Amino acid sequence: MMKNFPLTPVEGGVCAPKGFSAAGVHCGIRRNHSKPDLAILKADVRCAGAACYTTNKVYGAPITVDREHLADGHAQAIVVNSGNANTCAPNGVQLAHDVCKLAAQALGVAESDVLPASTGVIGQAMSIEPFAAGIPDAAARLEASPAGSLAAATAIMTTDTHPKQAAVEFTLSGRTCRLGAIAKGSGMIHPNMATMLLFITTDASVAPDVLQTALSAVVPATFNQISVDGDTSTNDTVILLASGLAGNAPLQPDTEDYTIFLTALTQVAEQLCRELAGDGEGATKLLECTVTHAPSLQVARDVSKSVIHSTLFKAAMFGADANWGRVLCAIGYTPGDFPIDHVSVRLKSRAGEVFVCENAAYHPYSEEEAAKVLAEKEIDILVDMGCGDAEAKAWGCDLTYDYVKINGDYRT
Amino acid sequence: MMKNFPLTPVEGGVCAPKGFSAAGVHCGIRRNHSKPDLAILKADVRCAGAACYTTNKVYGAPITVDREHLADGHAQAIVVNSGNANTCAPNGVQLAHDVCKLAAQALGVAESDVLPASTGVIGQAMSIEPFAAGIPDAAARLEASPAGSLAAATAIMTTDTHPKQAAVEFTLSGRTCRLGAIAKGSGMIHPNMATMLLFITTDASVAPDVLQTALSAVVPATFNQISVDGDTSTNDTVILLASGLAGNAPLQPDTEDYTIFLTALTQVAEQLCRELAGDGEGATKLLECTVTHAPSLQVARDVSKSVIHSTLFKAAMFGADANWGRVLCAIGYTPGDFPIDHVSVRLKSRAGEVFVCENAAYHPYSEEEAAKVLAEKEIDILVDMGCGDAEAKAWGCDLTYDYVKINGDYRT
Repeated sequence: MMKNFPLTPVEGGVCAPKGFSAAGVHCGIRRNHSKPDLAILKADVRCAGAACYTTNKVYGAPITVDREHLADGHAQAIVVNSGNANTCAPNGVQLAHDVCKLAAQALGVAESDVLPASTGVIGQAMSIEPFAAGIPDAAARLEASPAGSLAAATAIMTTDTHPKQAAVEFTLSGRTCRLGAIAKGSGMIHPNMATMLLFITTDASVAPDVLQTALSAVVPATFNQISVDGDTSTNDTVILLASGLAGNAPLQPDTEDYTIFLTALTQVAEQLCRELAGDGEGATKLLECTVTHAPSLQVARDVSKSVIHSTLFKAAMFGADANWGRVLCAIGYTPGDFPIDHVSVRLKSRAGEVFVCENAAYHPYSEEEAAKVLAEKEIDILVDMGCGDAEAKAWGCDLTYDYVKINGDYRT
Repeated sequence: MMKNFPLTPVEGGVCAPKGFSAAGVHCGIRRNHSKPDLAILKADVRCAGAACYTTNKVYGAPITVDREHLADGHAQAIVVNSGNANTCAPNGVQLAHDVCKLAAQALGVAESDVLPASTGVIGQAMSIEPFAAGIPDAAARLEASPAGSLAAATAIMTTDTHPKQAAVEFTLSGRTCRLGAIAKGSGMIHPNMATMLLFITTDASVAPDVLQTALSAVVPATFNQISVDGDTSTNDTVILLASGLAGNAPLQPDTEDYTIFLTALTQVAEQLCRELAGDGEGATKLLECTVTHAPSLQVARDVSKSVIHSTLFKAAMFGADANWGRVLCAIGYTPGDFPIDHVSVRLKSRAGEVFVCENAAYHPYSEEEAAKVLAEKEIDILVDMGCGDAEAKAWGCDLTYDYVKINGDYRT
């Protein structure tokens, strides 16, 4: 675990750091006029940029363009649409390029500094028309304010029930810095990199390679540890832009400042992980599984993810049923060779804690007490493996009737 | 694919082959008196025996005893209870031994020739009392008849909605042989070996090592290719007993007879795979994914399993929504390195066939036609990978409100 540094939560999401403005509008990709479907995030200056993408072999056309445009480590704007994933769609890469061209014109930035992103249905043709009107509209509404970030966070939502933002303030080489983010999640969430779309800004001065190193260090412990439904999306994208406008000395690896930056990034990431998992499609409960005393970091991560990914355990949590045998079962089928004889399991929430399993066997507890604990909205599953000192967390949600309802007829 | 030999489906399940009798009774492991909870399968002679077990690191106590008792390659009886998995339960192994002792006395066979099996809730103490009364009761009711097999198939059910049996007749070295089976499935089905409990009998004469080779050859292509919920059970067990009473010349590997035997075993296994998947918890539809022209057998198996395991695709099938992007997504996140550019997808049922995806992109089809195809109870998903000649099948079911209902409160 990282040291604690003074990190102050602040308002404003991606517009909290200096030099970023954002907007969200409805441009007609979705038929529903009350649902914004296009967001722009723009930086005042050319930023260092880093990204992580889905590991799915089927991936969205925007990711092809992002890889190309971020090859030089810099970017200045992000254009995101919801309602269509631009994946397995005809002429998808050309369309993503056309979107960048429109944004470059409207924003006065280089086309190769624009990063596109899309989320929505896979395999449907996307038209450039909505963008032709929507991009100038959004460009005219850009705001370097909490309202701008909120508008963008709202426009990237699909089945999310609320927009997701986070931001923190910290100090690097005596200068006040900020890091903020917006995210969308909800379904097709089992990132093998990161959840669907996540955009992070900072005004810290960080060179592209250091920025990528930091992002790549934080993603496996945070966004890769969420699962809503076990389906790794084709469009997962995390982009981190650093404007440098805070004026700190450029961040160097292996310094205390670097640790502070990693801590800030981790804190924002963990907050969004909890929000993304808790707002999983149909979810009524956030599940956080913490594994301690594991023989290795990999086992700790795999076991925690296995537990929050178990369909049977997720359904039991929906029913507030302390069926801990399903936790043991999920631990047991986690790949890898590790002992299970010393596993203990506790279920915890605001209402209390019940010790349900000791040494991989039943530990006496009150079903009444367990029902009280599991009636809460946020449930911690504490797994002590008793055979090492590695630890990890994973986040998920319960499996509900509404998940089935939402996904039984997603396209209509 | 195997050659076609004359294989005649016959009635009688595990009692179809010569020399096997079976029974099922209620003995009090379950409180509900109308639900039988104890089955016995007995052979007239000591049989060659083979088995495959769960790969879960947490596994039922009966599996420990089965491994011990099958070490010599022989067995004569199987005792199975539902209602309690005897897993992570205090003194589980001792209890499983005590069950064998009771069965040995009641059946007049050696204790080391009795194989125990259990299915039900994990982590709850099991008492020997119900067995002490139930085993003699079941022993007195043993029948070498279809009724005996049906009683046993019914007693091993948990959330299954109907008993599952299959049997075929074939000829080895001029002698008529039979192979029959009973199975239970329904939940916690994502075998990494085999589905929960499956007992197969044959009167063919097969030595233990040949029997194990045959079983180990068939399981990866059949029972390991089913998924209801992605949860690999702690109690998965397949046991195959061969009485030899058909009087054929002992089966030798690499002969035409061996191929016939494998074909019979595969046919019974595939029939039960379809029944197990189609009766998955809460299921309204059976999904069968056939992958052809894959670059390797492993890729074919993994891709077909990935498709029928996708929570999002399963929910779409419940809603009869031809959301083929989810099939592509599931193919894309299948582990392994293989090209996806030539993938085509067809959805098929008794009502017709729709060609929905060609070269990993949209292929024009009628949504009306697709809705008609998907309204049926059995849906085939045909995936042509266009890059090799390997093929495989996998079986699953849709994800429904009832799955959530059944598992939200399984223990009460």
